Amino acid sequence: MAGEFAIIDQYFKSGGTDPSDQTVLGIGDDCALLNVPQDMRLAVSKDMLIEHRHFYADVDPQSLGHKTLAVNLSDLAAMGAKPLGCFLGLGLPHINPAWLSGFAKGFLELCARFECPLLGGDTVKTPHDITLSVTILGVIPKATPALVRSAAQVGDDIWVSGQLGAADLAYRIREGMLPHYAHWLPDVLPALNWPTPRVELGQALRGVAHAAIDISDGLLQDLQHVLTASQVGACIAEDQLPAVPVLNHVDPALRRQSLLSGGDVYELCWTAPASQRERLQSMAQTLNVALTRIGHIVDQKGLTVLDSQHRPVDVEQAGFDHFAR
Amino acid sequence: MAGEFAIIDQYFKSGGTDPSDQTVLGIGDDCALLNVPQDMRLAVSKDMLIEHRHFYADVDPQSLGHKTLAVNLSDLAAMGAKPLGCFLGLGLPHINPAWLSGFAKGFLELCARFECPLLGGDTVKTPHDITLSVTILGVIPKATPALVRSAAQVGDDIWVSGQLGAADLAYRIREGMLPHYAHWLPDVLPALNWPTPRVELGQALRGVAHAAIDISDGLLQDLQHVLTASQVGACIAEDQLPAVPVLNHVDPALRRQSLLSGGDVYELCWTAPASQRERLQSMAQTLNVALTRIGHIVDQKGLTVLDSQHRPVDVEQAGFDHFAR
Repeated sequence: MAGEFAIIDQYFKSGGTDPSDQTVLGIGDDCALLNVPQDMRLAVSKDMLIEHRHFYADVDPQSLGHKTLAVNLSDLAAMGAKPLGCFLGLGLPHINPAWLSGFAKGFLELCARFECPLLGGDTVKTPHDITLSVTILGVIPKATPALVRSAAQVGDDIWVSGQLGAADLAYRIREGMLPHYAHWLPDVLPALNWPTPRVELGQALRGVAHAAIDISDGLLQDLQHVLTASQVGACIAEDQLPAVPVLNHVDPALRRQSLLSGGDVYELCWTAPASQRERLQSMAQTLNVALTRIGHIVDQKGLTVLDSQHRPVDVEQAGFDHFAR
Repeated sequence: MAGEFAIIDQYFKSGGTDPSDQTVLGIGDDCALLNVPQDMRLAVSKDMLIEHRHFYADVDPQSLGHKTLAVNLSDLAAMGAKPLGCFLGLGLPHINPAWLSGFAKGFLELCARFECPLLGGDTVKTPHDITLSVTILGVIPKATPALVRSAAQVGDDIWVSGQLGAADLAYRIREGMLPHYAHWLPDVLPALNWPTPRVELGQALRGVAHAAIDISDGLLQDLQHVLTASQVGACIAEDQLPAVPVLNHVDPALRRQSLLSGGDVYELCWTAPASQRERLQSMAQTLNVALTRIGHIVDQKGLTVLDSQHRPVDVEQAGFDHFAR
C-alpha cells in the first residue's frame, strides 16, 4: 500500500519485543519466515474486531490495542500454548496520530509482556469502520497433550480462573441498561477494557488439565462447547462461582445472568481429575490467581446448574442459548 | 459468535481440501494445531481486503472468493513457499446465502487446486462493509534459501512471469476512465477478477532465483522494493516487457503506464544469474508460463527504464511514485 498509510508502520516498527533469533528469520518481506522448534507443534488462532460491534468508537485506543492482542493471547492460553508471535491487520478510515500512538502502545506493551513479537501484517484504508484482525502463533511441546475441547472425562472437576461478572456489568452500565449502578463503572471497567489473558496459567495446565477453553462468550456457552466436543455433561454449583464482589450488591437475577452468561471474559475454564486438586491449589498460589472448583463432569449429557438449595437453575432465563455456537 | 452467523460455517466446512494427516492435528478448537516438518521453515503472510477499497460491491462473489485467496497465495509464491493452509476472517454486514455460497466456492476451489486447506478463522458481523482477512501459512525447505527481497546481486538478470497490463486496463475501463476501450473489457477482466497465483513457479525458482517479489503494486513499485532491500539499481528495457496483446491498440502513454505501474498483477518478478537462463527457459516450457527477461541489476542505485531507442523513460510520468512503499 502506497502513500500516507506507509507512515503507520512507524508506530509498530519496534514489534514490542525482539523475536528470538532461533525462531524468526525474516520480517518485512512478502512473508515472515519462522523456525518452529522441532519438539513443538504450532498453534494458530485468528480473530477480528470491528468498531461499533466489538468496541466503542470512543474507547481509549491504548486499552483497545491491549485488548486486541489480549483476546488472541487468551485463545493460545486455552490451548496451553506459549506465544511465538503475532500479525496485525489494521483497517482505518483515516490517520489519527494520537489514536495510532495509543493503540500501538497498548498492543506492543502486551507483546513485550508475553514475549509475543509483532512479526508482520497489513494496513489498509477502510471506508467507515476501524477493523482489527490479529493472527497469533504459539507453540506447544509435542510431548504434552494440547488442552483441546474434546478431552473432558466423566468424573473430572470443572475449574475456572479469576473472578466472573465484572465485564458484563461494565458492558451493561456503558449501554445504559443499569443507570442505578453507574457509580460502579470504575470498579468493573478494567475487566472489560484491560483483560489479562491467562497465558502462564494455560501453559501450567498442560499435563494437569484434560480439556480447556476460554470463556469469552460466557461460562455456560463456552463450557457447552467442551461438553459437546467431549460428549459428556456437567453439573455446576452456582454458589461456588467466583463472583466479583460488586455482584453481591446487584439484583439476584442480574447477578446470575452476569455470572453464567456474561461475555467478554478472558478467564479459562478447564476440567481436571480430582487427583490434581492439590497441584492446582499450589498453582493458584504460585501464579497468584484465584482458581476455583465450580462443578464436575457427568456421564449424562446436558448442563445443569444447581442453586444454593441444590435446585436446578433455569439456564435459559439466565441467558444461556443452547443453540449458540 | 452466537446465532445466525454460526450457519456461515456450513459454507466453509469442507475446508476445500483435506489437510495432510502429518501436518494438521486439530481444527475447530481455540486454535488450530499443526506440525511443521522439521526440515522446513514456516512462511506467514496476512492481507486484508475491504469492500469499496479493494473490490467492487457488485463483484461476482465467486471471483472475489478466488481472488481473496489468490493474493495471499501470491505472497507465498514470491517467497518460494509451498502452501500449508489458510485462515479466513470474514466480516459481513448481513447474510446473503447466494453470495456466501459463491464466495465459498471460489475460495475453496482455489484451496483445493493448491492444496491449501482452510484451517480456521473468524466470522463477524460488520456495520457497513464486507471485510476479508486471510492469513496464509506455507513451508520452505531449510536446505534452500528463501526468495527474499534483499538477495538481488549486481549482474543478475531481471525476469517477470506472464503478461502485464490487463488488470490495469480492466480497472480503468470499470472506473469509466476509458470509454473508448469498453469493448475490450471481456478480454482483460479475467486478469483482474481471476488472477492465477504463480505457486508452482515460486517453488521452482528456489535455488535458481536470488530475489523475488510479486508485483501486485505494479512492476516498478515492487521492483523498487527489491532494489532498496538489496542496495542495488536496475535497468529495464521497455520493449522487452511482456505486454498483453490488447495493449498494442491503446494510446502509447497509457500502454506505458499500464505496463510499468499498473497494479493488481499477481505475477512474479525475480533476479537470477545469467547462468540460469537455460534452466529458466526450460522451466517456462515445463510450467507452461511465459518467463521473460526484461533487464538486469546494476551497481548504481536507481531504477532506469529505457525505451526502444535506448532513451530513459520518465518513470514518474508513467505513474511511478518513488516514495510509495
